[in-house]
Amino acid sequence: MPPSPFSSRRQALRELLRTADLDALLVTDLVNVRYLTGFTGSNAALLVHSRDEEGTRFCTDGRYVAQSATEVPDLQRVIERSSALALAEAAAGLGVRRLGFESDAVTVEAHLALTDAAGAVALQRAPGLVQQLRLVKDETEIAALRTACAAADSAFADLIAAGGLRPGRTERAVALDLENRMRGHGATGPAFETILASGANSAIPHHRPTDTELRRGDLVKLDFGALVDGYHSDMTRTVVLGPPADWQRELYALVAASQAAGRAALVPGATVSGVDAAARNVIVDAGRGAEFVHGLGHGVGLQIHEAPALSAAGTGTLASGMTVTVEPGVYLAGRGGVRIEDTLVVREGVPEVLTRTGRELVEL
Amino acid sequence: MPPSPFSSRRQALRELLRTADLDALLVTDLVNVRYLTGFTGSNAALLVHSRDEEGTRFCTDGRYVAQSATEVPDLQRVIERSSALALAEAAAGLGVRRLGFESDAVTVEAHLALTDAAGAVALQRAPGLVQQLRLVKDETEIAALRTACAAADSAFADLIAAGGLRPGRTERAVALDLENRMRGHGATGPAFETILASGANSAIPHHRPTDTELRRGDLVKLDFGALVDGYHSDMTRTVVLGPPADWQRELYALVAASQAAGRAALVPGATVSGVDAAARNVIVDAGRGAEFVHGLGHGVGLQIHEAPALSAAGTGTLASGMTVTVEPGVYLAGRGGVRIEDTLVVREGVPEVLTRTGRELVEL
Repeated sequence: MPPSPFSSRRQALRELLRTADLDALLVTDLVNVRYLTGFTGSNAALLVHSRDEEGTRFCTDGRYVAQSATEVPDLQRVIERSSALALAEAAAGLGVRRLGFESDAVTVEAHLALTDAAGAVALQRAPGLVQQLRLVKDETEIAALRTACAAADSAFADLIAAGGLRPGRTERAVALDLENRMRGHGATGPAFETILASGANSAIPHHRPTDTELRRGDLVKLDFGALVDGYHSDMTRTVVLGPPADWQRELYALVAASQAAGRAALVPGATVSGVDAAARNVIVDAGRGAEFVHGLGHGVGLQIHEAPALSAAGTGTLASGMTVTVEPGVYLAGRGGVRIEDTLVVREGVPEVLTRTGRELVEL
Repeated sequence: MPPSPFSSRRQALRELLRTADLDALLVTDLVNVRYLTGFTGSNAALLVHSRDEEGTRFCTDGRYVAQSATEVPDLQRVIERSSALALAEAAAGLGVRRLGFESDAVTVEAHLALTDAAGAVALQRAPGLVQQLRLVKDETEIAALRTACAAADSAFADLIAAGGLRPGRTERAVALDLENRMRGHGATGPAFETILASGANSAIPHHRPTDTELRRGDLVKLDFGALVDGYHSDMTRTVVLGPPADWQRELYALVAASQAAGRAALVPGATVSGVDAAARNVIVDAGRGAEFVHGLGHGVGLQIHEAPALSAAGTGTLASGMTVTVEPGVYLAGRGGVRIEDTLVVREGVPEVLTRTGRELVEL
């Protein structure tokens, strides 16, 4: 039997711990616990020992005895309500002298309680270690993202085929329809609150669906995703109800060109700010730079927004296996906006596009 | 024009600040920011000055310029992406020397950055101040909870009337049906992931809906709620498909008696552990204490779980205007479980029951 992806991830974390001169890491961020163990409940902590799995402990409370036995069969489990404190107390007995903690997730009050519980064991700030591993997805993760993106693709195709995008329906009704179709294609739910914005509302980047009715001539922006096995897909398409006006066609072509430039720039070694610039320059050169009011994209995985940020202020470079969105938009206040977004995997050569829906301007 | 509930809440916070000898509180927990201002966006901070509204500042980022002007018209607004840091930097200029921060929400890393930004202003740990105010709901909040509970009541009644709870449907399909009916009655969404558990699954307290089909003879446990204006309703009902077996009828009667005892104990001045005991003793006396594996209930409001916890280990006493759930359950592994839950307001005399669905055993 090959090692589970979870034990491989813990093994990778061990190498980071040795580099950081830590005997163990106390993982309390539930997303990081899920990444390292597969556990999906609402209370857990994990002490990853730098030496081996033998010294590693998983803790959850009494509600999750059965679930944790199924989801985390390969680690010694402790059942305690105060899971983080229980593992901090256990650290000394496991031979830990320097115990890292997730200082970017642990509150000031929780840190005081942990310090108390840890006794003679020294707590050391260790922010971002698991996030560093999560930057590059393994193939198990990419498979989940692929399935999530496919669910969103299928739901969108069904919505269009069923005539679900038509004048007279409200933004709210269409958003709910789309979310239910994603569930029908295997999503456990939407990956985030669906953005469904019609007419002038499409010029609001993060518009929430309202009772506004779609009208003939509207641009309709749909930004949505499916959640599958904890992984989030993210896609935006903008369609037009009826034949597009010239300004709509021009706006769409501009954003599509920018998005293509952004995708083309997604190569291992590229700086995240350089990728942002590649897409942004297309819009700036057209005199619309002030109307592209957000970053180009973001990492996506167990969280809908995670590292790396593709933005002018972002730092760092891309690596093969990172999954990111590319989503330029131009928003003309009071008239309408266009955003086109895909979820992609950075690969040697060209990126793998996980969201497969076409990007031509759809007239309905 | 009467003062908004938000300015009244800020005024109440000012009194706590003076007692704590703080010149201001930096509020960064978004739920607390919403409570104090009405702002519903995803990035904000609030500096509440102990002196007055003049010294108080609200900060959000560029995405929310229009939304914050509508939702927070009564405060001076600052537009900065790093909202908490911006207000920490502004504190000295507002005459603040001692600045409280929410040490139960701020991470260790964020605290270091705030300390840097605050310069000569002394940051003081101030956990739980806004939560203390949120314990007792004002009538604006209770009205929202009442509307949320009514949406859940109506959805449940519709589900039953439509024959939605019948053998052959999957747990997942019924859960989705119920959630959509809540939306149809005005909910912006479910208040939490709906628990829909049939047959032996009903013995799992926090079961997630699966593709298990409902069968004749099953106990079916539905734990669900509606979200309205940010407020969460919470209700559990357990029904039986067909005539109940004797053990099902007895189990139901036991839990119903326990729940009635818990409701009767909800009076101002009662200790939370005493309320838990009042309901628990009914079950313990029947020899089922080991199968009631969780606390009796919890506060509910802008969060689905908030203070006070009604449990054996809980501390503190009830006051008029607190909103809590009362939800005993008994779970027979491999056979089935029953939970009955209402959301109530503690009042002088008898509590106000916000969830109005009947509690008799429904046979479908």
